[in-house]
Parts: sequence; C-alpha cells; structure tokens
Amino acid sequence: METTQISDIKIIKSPTSKIDSVDFETLTFGKQFTDHMLVCDFIDGEWHQPIIMPYAPFEMDPSSRVFHYGQAIFEGMKAYRDAQDEIWLFRPDQNYERFNKSAIRLAMPEVPEHIFMDGLKELIKIDANWIKKGNGNALYIRPFMIGTSDGVIASPSLNFKFCIILSPVKSYYSGEVKVVIADHFSRAANGGIGAAKAAGNYAAQFYPTKLANQKGFQQVIWTDDTTHTKLEESGTMNVFFRINDTLITAPVSERILDGVTRKSLLAIAERDGIKTEVRSITVNEIVDAHRNGSLKEIFGAGTAAVVSLIAGFQYKDEYFELPQVADRFATQLKEKLNAIQYNEAEDTFNWTVKL
Amino acid sequence: METTQISDIKIIKSPTSKIDSVDFETLTFGKQFTDHMLVCDFIDGEWHQPIIMPYAPFEMDPSSRVFHYGQAIFEGMKAYRDAQDEIWLFRPDQNYERFNKSAIRLAMPEVPEHIFMDGLKELIKIDANWIKKGNGNALYIRPFMIGTSDGVIASPSLNFKFCIILSPVKSYYSGEVKVVIADHFSRAANGGIGAAKAAGNYAAQFYPTKLANQKGFQQVIWTDDTTHTKLEESGTMNVFFRINDTLITAPVSERILDGVTRKSLLAIAERDGIKTEVRSITVNEIVDAHRNGSLKEIFGAGTAAVVSLIAGFQYKDEYFELPQVADRFATQLKEKLNAIQYNEAEDTFNWTVKL
Repeated sequence: METTQISDIKIIKSPTSKIDSVDFETLTFGKQFTDHMLVCDFIDGEWHQPIIMPYAPFEMDPSSRVFHYGQAIFEGMKAYRDAQDEIWLFRPDQNYERFNKSAIRLAMPEVPEHIFMDGLKELIKIDANWIKKGNGNALYIRPFMIGTSDGVIASPSLNFKFCIILSPVKSYYSGEVKVVIADHFSRAANGGIGAAKAAGNYAAQFYPTKLANQKGFQQVIWTDDTTHTKLEESGTMNVFFRINDTLITAPVSERILDGVTRKSLLAIAERDGIKTEVRSITVNEIVDAHRNGSLKEIFGAGTAAVVSLIAGFQYKDEYFELPQVADRFATQLKEKLNAIQYNEAEDTFNWTVKL
Repeated sequence: METTQISDIKIIKSPTSKIDSVDFETLTFGKQFTDHMLVCDFIDGEWHQPIIMPYAPFEMDPSSRVFHYGQAIFEGMKAYRDAQDEIWLFRPDQNYERFNKSAIRLAMPEVPEHIFMDGLKELIKIDANWIKKGNGNALYIRPFMIGTSDGVIASPSLNFKFCIILSPVKSYYSGEVKVVIADHFSRAANGGIGAAKAAGNYAAQFYPTKLANQKGFQQVIWTDDTTHTKLEESGTMNVFFRINDTLITAPVSERILDGVTRKSLLAIAERDGIKTEVRSITVNEIVDAHRNGSLKEIFGAGTAAVVSLIAGFQYKDEYFELPQVADRFATQLKEKLNAIQYNEAEDTFNWTVKL
C-alpha cells in the first residue's frame, strides 16, 4: 500500500479498487461502499491523527459501549458531479454543526472542523471516480461516531471512533407512499433526543413502522407523544403540508430534527413566492382541510430522497386519499433544489461548495 | 483449542485462562470479563448454532446497523456461589422474558429459550471458577443482541448477533447519593421504548446525568416527559419512596422498566408485612411529605447495586435532605433479597435456580 500524508491526515491507499465490480445502474441505496474510509480515534481526551485507509471491518470488544448503551450519532449528506465534471458538496457546514450538536446531546466529544471537513474532502477526492455524472447519481456521505470504551457499566464512553464512509447512490424514488398517523407510538420525548441524529431514535421507529407496513402503509407520520395531535415528522424525514397555496411545516424543536433539506426547501419556496408557514399543524387541521378540499399535498423532505410524495394518510379508522394536483410544490421544489445541487442553476444562497 | 459439542452448543475452550491475572479484591464493575463468551448468529431468518468460544473481539463492518440505527438490546443478571459451593441464578426466566419483549419492540428476532438459557448455563459452568464465595461477590451476566446487517439505510437489520459475556463483580456500593429531579430532560416517551432494555435509552441519559454531576448530584430521578410531575425511575434503576411506613413505587408502563429487583423487593415487602402501594407518585407529594416529616426514604432498585440509598433530592432551586432513619426498609429488603440470592435464607418464592 502507498502511504502519504496530507496536512495531518495519514493516507493509506488501497492497492486495488472494487469499482469495476460495481454496476452503477442497479445500486441499492446505502449498500455499496467505496474503496476508502476515514477513521479517527478519540482516546484519553484527545483526537488522534485521522487516517484515510482501505474500507475494512472494525475490531470491536464485545463490551464496547455502543453495543450496550447506544452511544452513536451520524449524519447524511451527498456529493454531486456536474456536467463540467466538477464535484460539489451541499451545505456541509450544516451537517457539521448538527453533528456536533448531536455529539453534545449524547455526551460525546465534538469533532474538530479540520478532521470532519478536511477529512471529508480529502476522502471524496480519493474516491472521486465513484461519483457519476447525471441527475440522480450522487455519493452518499455517512459521517458517524460510536463509543468504543470497553465495559458494561452505564456511563459515557471515554473513547470514541469517528468515521466517514461513502456510498454511491442513484436517485431514490419510492413512489407515492401511503402513511399512517401515529396515535400511540412515538419517536421522541419532550426533553429527549429527537432533535439529535442519534442511532437510538431510528431503532425505536422500526417496530411501529413494521406494524404500519403490515397494514399496507409504507411510513408513519409521527405526532407529539403527549397528545398525538401535532404532526411532526414522516418516517425519517421532515414533513410538509400544502393547504391551498400555503406550505406548512412544524418548527424544529427538541423532538423534531433540524433537517437541511427542510430548511433548503423552505428557503427556495420563500425566494420564489410560495407562501410558507413554520408553525405547529394538527391532525384535525389536515382532516378538516381534506374534507373542504383545501389540502393539496403532503410530502416528506430529507437527504436520501429529497422529497417523498404522500398519496394519502390513515388516521384511526379512516383513510384520506390526497388529490392529484398539477404542478405540485413537492416536484417544483425538488427540481429547483436538485438544480442547485448539480450546479445547473444559479446558487443564490451560496449553499454549494466546490471540492 | 479443545472443541466439543454439548446438545447443540459448540464449545471451543480457551487454551489459557486470564483468571490468575485478576485481582478479585479490586474489581471495577463491568470492566473485567471471563475467559469465554457465547455467540449465536441469526442469519437469513434462522438462528445458527450457538458457540461458546474464547472471549474475543467482533469483526464488524463499518456500516453495521447497530452503529447507525441503534438496534441493540441487553439484559443484566447475576450468578451467586453459596457457602456449600453451589452456584445459583436469580429469576433468569424474568430476564429471558423481558429480553424477548425488548426484542419485539426493537424489531429484532426473539431468542429461543434453549439458546438463551442452555447457553447461559453452559457458559457459566465453563467459567464457574470466576464466581467467588462471599456476600457481595457475584458474576454479572450480560446477554445482548445487536443488528449486524451491512448498509446505511434506516430499516431493520436482517442479521443479528446474540451474545452473552460474563463479568466477575464485587458488591456495588456507591454510598448515599444526591439526586436531582428532572424538570426538563426525559428518558422515555409515551409510546416509546422506555420499557425495553434498549441501548438507545441509556445514551439518552448520559448528558442530563453529566449536567447533574457537574452540579454535585450523582443521579437523576426521571419524571414523565409531559408534565415532569410523576416520579418514574432513578438513573438506570426503578425508584421507591417510603412515606411513613408505606413503600410506594410507580407502576411499570411503556415508560418504566419492569425491573426484576423492583418486583422482588415488592414481593418480599408484602410477604413481611410492609405496606406497599404501586401507584403514580408525584413530586408535590414527596415535597409535601418531606415538609411534614413523613418522607422517610428514597432508594433506587436494580441488579447491579440491589438498592442505591438516596441522601436527598434537588427539585428546581431547593434541596431536600432526607432524614437518617433507623432500620431502613432499603437495608432490610436488600439483606433479605441477598440472603435468598446467596441461598442463605429459605426461598419462599421459588426464585432461585441451581446451576
């Protein structure tokens, strides 16, 4: 293996590449990884040298904190290749900031910017040939951190591993999904960790989602756990409602993730004259709006799919089919956001960062 | 290595033992492990053969579900050696049942009884010399299960690893602790996973506990996340309150773990004529009881420490010091429970299981 050093990142290049064995036309989201990963250990109160090295398994003691106490956080972001073969990141500063907010809430050390950002950029440069041209093609970037100290005692880990892995992805379209509005299960508590991208939040959703799947629904719209009346997130995405020509989404809170796609869609909508409201929205309000014909669209917003169209929602014993509207906000906003991400439209917001 | 097969458990004995390097007088809880572990993989919808093998690291893909989505559960239980050199388990059926309840809530497969129970017993027999005689000495048993499928997509793992590791422990006495009653942070949502021994529940507690520690409190008494008025758990333990001569603890619920120590102490109290009440108890009630002198004791109850004595509690800006009562319920009940666990008193409940 070839070993070099760029600033303070140690680089160990893989002697071979898997890329020729990958069919880029039939990628499953998040299943295929590039040749390299970045790893950086936090030990005895200090971050050690970040290393870019061949993608390989970790050796983990069976008593590692992450296995027992779930001390784990992550981020999800993408890199895009434009028609001129330039590579772009989208608002990486937002993911970096949120990562460290999650770290604080989970009693983990913040990752210094040079490790996160320089590490990320250097890693992507090394595996840049995994990013294909063409709308929908992207490199999904997964920074994450886990508690690695040994010992089955319920106290924070002292040692941690920060890692970035990369997965080439195609455009992610799940079709229009039917959702069920949660009236019993919840994803987040008041004063809990719902606003953090904490691993434990996701496992908690799997069982209620499985129950929804068994009844023919693809996702759950999560409500506040106290009254189950406030509409908060959809699956692992933020959620938007269009009533007449106003786009409504709940404010971020302790229970609701501050999604980068969410705030980017809001900004584009506002720039382009769509009326937006960031406020609490209730089940009764959308049921009433459905009955009087003013509920036009519901969609999820997140990094993986950008938007996820919702065909209808079940609430208690009733199913509410949404109308098929022409010129959907969801589709317009997705196209505009994608155009910025792929450097096909002017980035009036200064969101994109050239690699 | 010597390889044998007992029923359907494959046994690979460690050629050497670490036991002579261990000082059993200075054990730190949960830091030292015995020579062997049990591992059993669930792959493609089936449990494979359980293997007892030398304690060793796992090889884990960086994209393993447990690192990203927190699909992980555990149990905590103990084995004891009595004066006649017999080894005893305490209510292992309760831990087994709860483990599988946790598995269902986290969308994981239930572990068959023969893998959990026979595996546990066989493993303990092999490492039986790690269990020392004498009150306070015990073998802490940690069964756990993690999602091992590769892939950064937020859906349940298809593959899982069930494992049991063993840690010799001494009696765990943290002194009398000062606690703070949570008035903002929470450990569980209504409709969440608070009743499961899910890894993610514990990481969520670390930061609020750290804040409490910084203010001079060792633990947090968790309240319901909606009103922060109902007293629910203390740290990672259930919590009991003694008002005059009545012992009160909250009913188990979706937010409150069905603790084995909790229900065993309740049963002993009831058998021995202590008045018990299993009902919701509020902050106002204990503040009032403190002011009128009827609040006598507060203590946590859990496997590691059996009981954890509480010296006083902070609520908002006020600290309430508890009285020093003679003949504490906490101490009486702990002694009685320990006497059953170490086979020093008659087990009128049929709780103990001889190995």
